[in-house]
Amino acid sequence: MTPYSELGKEELLKLKEELTLQYEDAKGKGLKLDMSRGKPAPAQLDMTMPMMDIFTSHADMKDEQGVDTRNYGCLEGIYGARRLLGEMLGVDPEHVIVFGTASLNVMYDSISRSYTHGVMGSTPWCKLDKVKFLCPAPGYDRHFGITEHFGIEMITIPMTAEGPDMDLVEEYVKDPAVKGIWCVPMYTNPLGITYSENVCKRMADLNPAAEDFRIYWDNAYCVHHLYDEEEKQDHLPEMLSMCKVNGKENMILEFASTSKISFAGAGISCIAASKDNLDWVKKSMTVQIISHDKINQLRHVRFFKDLNGIKEHMKKHAAIMRPKFELVLDVLEKELGGLGIGTWTKPLGGYFISFDTMEGCAKAVYQKCKDAGVTLTTVGATYPYKKDPHDTNIRIAPSFPSMEELKQCAELFALCVKLASVEKLLENK
Amino acid sequence: MTPYSELGKEELLKLKEELTLQYEDAKGKGLKLDMSRGKPAPAQLDMTMPMMDIFTSHADMKDEQGVDTRNYGCLEGIYGARRLLGEMLGVDPEHVIVFGTASLNVMYDSISRSYTHGVMGSTPWCKLDKVKFLCPAPGYDRHFGITEHFGIEMITIPMTAEGPDMDLVEEYVKDPAVKGIWCVPMYTNPLGITYSENVCKRMADLNPAAEDFRIYWDNAYCVHHLYDEEEKQDHLPEMLSMCKVNGKENMILEFASTSKISFAGAGISCIAASKDNLDWVKKSMTVQIISHDKINQLRHVRFFKDLNGIKEHMKKHAAIMRPKFELVLDVLEKELGGLGIGTWTKPLGGYFISFDTMEGCAKAVYQKCKDAGVTLTTVGATYPYKKDPHDTNIRIAPSFPSMEELKQCAELFALCVKLASVEKLLENK
Repeated sequence: MTPYSELGKEELLKLKEELTLQYEDAKGKGLKLDMSRGKPAPAQLDMTMPMMDIFTSHADMKDEQGVDTRNYGCLEGIYGARRLLGEMLGVDPEHVIVFGTASLNVMYDSISRSYTHGVMGSTPWCKLDKVKFLCPAPGYDRHFGITEHFGIEMITIPMTAEGPDMDLVEEYVKDPAVKGIWCVPMYTNPLGITYSENVCKRMADLNPAAEDFRIYWDNAYCVHHLYDEEEKQDHLPEMLSMCKVNGKENMILEFASTSKISFAGAGISCIAASKDNLDWVKKSMTVQIISHDKINQLRHVRFFKDLNGIKEHMKKHAAIMRPKFELVLDVLEKELGGLGIGTWTKPLGGYFISFDTMEGCAKAVYQKCKDAGVTLTTVGATYPYKKDPHDTNIRIAPSFPSMEELKQCAELFALCVKLASVEKLLENK
Repeated sequence: MTPYSELGKEELLKLKEELTLQYEDAKGKGLKLDMSRGKPAPAQLDMTMPMMDIFTSHADMKDEQGVDTRNYGCLEGIYGARRLLGEMLGVDPEHVIVFGTASLNVMYDSISRSYTHGVMGSTPWCKLDKVKFLCPAPGYDRHFGITEHFGIEMITIPMTAEGPDMDLVEEYVKDPAVKGIWCVPMYTNPLGITYSENVCKRMADLNPAAEDFRIYWDNAYCVHHLYDEEEKQDHLPEMLSMCKVNGKENMILEFASTSKISFAGAGISCIAASKDNLDWVKKSMTVQIISHDKINQLRHVRFFKDLNGIKEHMKKHAAIMRPKFELVLDVLEKELGGLGIGTWTKPLGGYFISFDTMEGCAKAVYQKCKDAGVTLTTVGATYPYKKDPHDTNIRIAPSFPSMEELKQCAELFALCVKLASVEKLLENK
């Protein structure tokens, strides 16, 4: 393949003509497909349906400790659920509180609580002139949405192949207005990479000026490998104990859920943190709610039993996700390999492939896909304030469409990348 | 019966001796009973167990509108759930958002959102020097807990037999710092009375100085009658339309849940309000969560089907609750009638009986009960800042204990009231 940048104006014009024809043809197909969000496919949800058999009208609804899950009480969640999610994160049940369905809500509440009441006795953020957050980007749009909602200034931290640029992070945390950093450390959204041991070590040994600085460790994809073979899986150190070794166990709040393990929006979620942090969380929580849905917690405990149960279940997810990732990667390689008009990640897990176009082409690709009936994640959404400084990043979410649909999506996407790139190159000829 | 107040010192001393003997005897029984919280009894929870058969591994998990309840989406809750809870409150589904399990959490979030972001564009409460709330009392301790948590000044509004003292309410809302009033309008916690038509009318036509003043209408017991006969049921006007008639539909936020209909802590909850208010709620909600547990919403819709299904189910609850209320009221009448040492309500619904001791006796009664193994709601909890100005009010929650246990509780309670009253009367002899 000849890289597009080596083509002359005439060649580019000819190419544009060919691609435009192909594109008009694709448009005519009347596609209506969605690759925008990390939604599990129906086939994945089907796999969890046996969970619906766990309880019948004659079921014993008491947990191992004798708690009647149908009644009020047990603010921290049933012990079995704390153990199950603790195992998944590699921490003791005593360091876990289990909530309702959404870890996003738990994160929102953590920020909101800090804003209204401060962190473990420090000044509430609403009383401060300025609060800043470090936002490794490209990152998870909903994280940035929370901090933006609370008027928190977001500082973009570039991502390297190993995780956030730690030189910058170490520098920025010297500012006492910097109160936190958003992290999706494993199979990160959208890059699909996992923070290296070195990045984790440096993260666990930060010296923030602010006593209420916290690492918001959203371990959303901690068991979401695409491959069963250990050597094809990323590995992430357990951070709570890493921070503890440095005497900094209060510096981290870890979040997780089973949204992409059991049911999206009907799983169980948790926070894992030091005793001091959990006490702080509980101080508001006890005002906020009597107890979360313990029936659903017990349903999950009886269904998965333990970490091994989760791992076995995740292999089934992988069997559905793996071919989808491979299909997209194959199409990208086949259609775009060697053209020099895009780079992309090849994740071993998670829900996303991250694609970078040539500078200034992402929006155009998005629009072209949209006009032809394929919705991508809104371009820019992976950056704070929805502003991608170079207009290059596109998050590809291959989970929801069927294989047949996905092939159409990927091919259309590649076509749009080519067309947008040619148009961009012609601008300068 | 001779009222205690007419007894002379000698008679009181003799009575004290007798009562003390009875009390020591009761203490010796080693009771360990709890009448403190409005928790459903296991027999009530058993009645909802058929809900656990609604879904099996082969169930159709799509709702009437084709929404796959197992996946993300549908922020406002599934339409069927909005219709079901709307019917229960007498409002259109369009005016309802269905949340997770806990209406308490929805109320907390409403206050928190007002504190951090203001109400529909008004100044966030955290930026104001002073925010005040009107708190009809005795009232629900967890309401007061929320306002106290946010540093909101609570103003006690005395309750009359018809509801809050509206003369005072109308006066206080002239203060622009007054931003809300907590109401449990039907079978109110703890009095068990229902606001009269007149009180509701005046409430729906308030002229608050603050544009962000809201009535926080916690309709927790809207279908919780003790008697099946209509003439033995309280009736509450539908407030959203009453406010609308006055052009004040933005003035009310109504809350409800199925916690005491299906499962306590595993039901579904809602807010009912004007379109403007719902838009304001959704503005934060869309940052906070992707969607609440739609599987549980659909489970409730399929189980109850409609308001009639809820009403039929509530008759079964009544069949369990009614004899408990009657038992306690019988014991109170038999043991304390005519003694002039206490008054109590005789509710037609809800979860509580409210008891008033002679001035300055409630704490003593609480302690005596506790020492003999019966836990009551913490005395004072029914007032803002947990301070009952006259030390008289005790909330009796008859739902959780069995009939046998309840009889022991009620008799011990009556005995403790007698003993504490005699001791109080002797102080002044």
